Amino acid sequence: MKELVFGHKNPDTDAIVAAKAFSYLENQLGADTQAVALGEPNEETKFVLDHFKEPAPRVIEKAASEVEAVMLVDHNEAQQSVADLKDVTVTHVVDHHRIANFETSLPLYYHAEPVGCTSTIILKLFKQNSIEVPAKLAGLMLSAIISDTLLFKSPTTTDDDKATVKELAKIAKVDYEKYGLEMLKAGTNLGSKSEKELVDADAKSFEMGGKTVRIDQINTVDIDEVFEREDALREVIAAENKAEGYDLFLLMVTNILNSDTRLLVVGEPQEVVEKAFDVKLADNKAELPGVVSRKKQVVPPLEKAF
Amino acid sequence: MKELVFGHKNPDTDAIVAAKAFSYLENQLGADTQAVALGEPNEETKFVLDHFKEPAPRVIEKAASEVEAVMLVDHNEAQQSVADLKDVTVTHVVDHHRIANFETSLPLYYHAEPVGCTSTIILKLFKQNSIEVPAKLAGLMLSAIISDTLLFKSPTTTDDDKATVKELAKIAKVDYEKYGLEMLKAGTNLGSKSEKELVDADAKSFEMGGKTVRIDQINTVDIDEVFEREDALREVIAAENKAEGYDLFLLMVTNILNSDTRLLVVGEPQEVVEKAFDVKLADNKAELPGVVSRKKQVVPPLEKAF
Repeated sequence: MKELVFGHKNPDTDAIVAAKAFSYLENQLGADTQAVALGEPNEETKFVLDHFKEPAPRVIEKAASEVEAVMLVDHNEAQQSVADLKDVTVTHVVDHHRIANFETSLPLYYHAEPVGCTSTIILKLFKQNSIEVPAKLAGLMLSAIISDTLLFKSPTTTDDDKATVKELAKIAKVDYEKYGLEMLKAGTNLGSKSEKELVDADAKSFEMGGKTVRIDQINTVDIDEVFEREDALREVIAAENKAEGYDLFLLMVTNILNSDTRLLVVGEPQEVVEKAFDVKLADNKAELPGVVSRKKQVVPPLEKAF
Repeated sequence: MKELVFGHKNPDTDAIVAAKAFSYLENQLGADTQAVALGEPNEETKFVLDHFKEPAPRVIEKAASEVEAVMLVDHNEAQQSVADLKDVTVTHVVDHHRIANFETSLPLYYHAEPVGCTSTIILKLFKQNSIEVPAKLAGLMLSAIISDTLLFKSPTTTDDDKATVKELAKIAKVDYEKYGLEMLKAGTNLGSKSEKELVDADAKSFEMGGKTVRIDQINTVDIDEVFEREDALREVIAAENKAEGYDLFLLMVTNILNSDTRLLVVGEPQEVVEKAFDVKLADNKAELPGVVSRKKQVVPPLEKAF
């Protein structure tokens, strides 16, 4: 019985690569799976796919029309998954996030570890099953780890992530530091994007204290350059909050070279944000020095404050 | 930082053994953990602990007074766990059940597989980490697998479970078939138990369609013998429903030798039970031939019917 394998909506490099890697592994073990994606690749992922001459995955919105069962990678929360997740059986999850808003009626395979990237876990699964990683896939997987860990600068980075990149770099024959910087810079090519694209690109929704909270992150090498477009960004976010029913929108603009974030907050309750990060918002903005990880440094304090 | 490791309330042999096994493994890997239990060992588990000269674990009801973090084995649903689960951080879960009513604010280690027993998964973790299983622990772990799979007669049994018992039997130097039958018979020593004990011994609560559903399973070698006490059992269940706020109570009385179950249903809605198993209840009872697994054959259809 065929199954689809996919990462979260608004896919980043790990969401797309982990689906390809886990699908490959499962097929080697006798399953019949296909890697798909819940959106088009972003600029960084396009750079990665071009570099390793790998096609972009087919994009789906729903799954139940073509399969009865699916495998999730790099996410588990229903609102980050296919629109009709309730109509299919989740048989496998490989992830590195918290578990929330996820429920099954049957036992399943679920493997999560608190490491920086799903692809780090997937290399372990290859080894446990004595399956070799092809050179091209090794290149894709090390790209995902460099992306999620911002070349080891993110506080989510573990020794496992570093060791895995080094191991994969040997298989892929890649100078990972040089390649990684090129890749991260390609991902921050913001000038070519509309405000709408910036606000949507890496956004995820969370349910907290009965409110729908949307958090987007823009990685850049120049925060001020992004904030030259602040008025237009505010307008687009306010319109999106209204159209999609988001109560609160946090836009994280993160300098990937020095690991600082400036936050723009649109919607209510603003005071929960002030409480979460122990800051005063000035003109809906706050500086969060040393904050680069939505998952580890933004979602948990925000959830606690709610 | 010390962590407690424990299985579900109303512990069965796997809940107690898996906690001991995973705690041992984590300590070998450098953690500081202690295995505890959320209740006293049942008759079967007492037989197992006596046989391998292993002490019963300390019983706790709450965890936050002594530790900040815990590891769950053989369960994940909050209502099956410590009373103050919300006040501690869950860092590890090893389980073989569905995932429901479980949520964390931080990423964690979570390993689940759809096999018959948690201890089957734990042997894999020993191997992945190249840690040897001591002979006594091997004996305890094979007991847990024989208990959960009813000596491979339960439909939850996988090839993994069978292979694991055989491997552990070599380490423990145990004739697992002879020992397993003795152990299962020791567990069905029902004559010595009060109706209250029978109704509580292996009961678990589930939230379904807004109702609190309680399901208990009594393993026996003679179903009719248990139903000689039917009136007293009904009374105790009705009183418990009232006292604890259960809407619906299903008592599964299962013949472990021929794999049939007779169901006694107290509470409402009764028609959901009829729908779930496509049976007519006569005098609140129904025969469910071939049904031995609450997890695989009772919870999913019941949840679907709700």
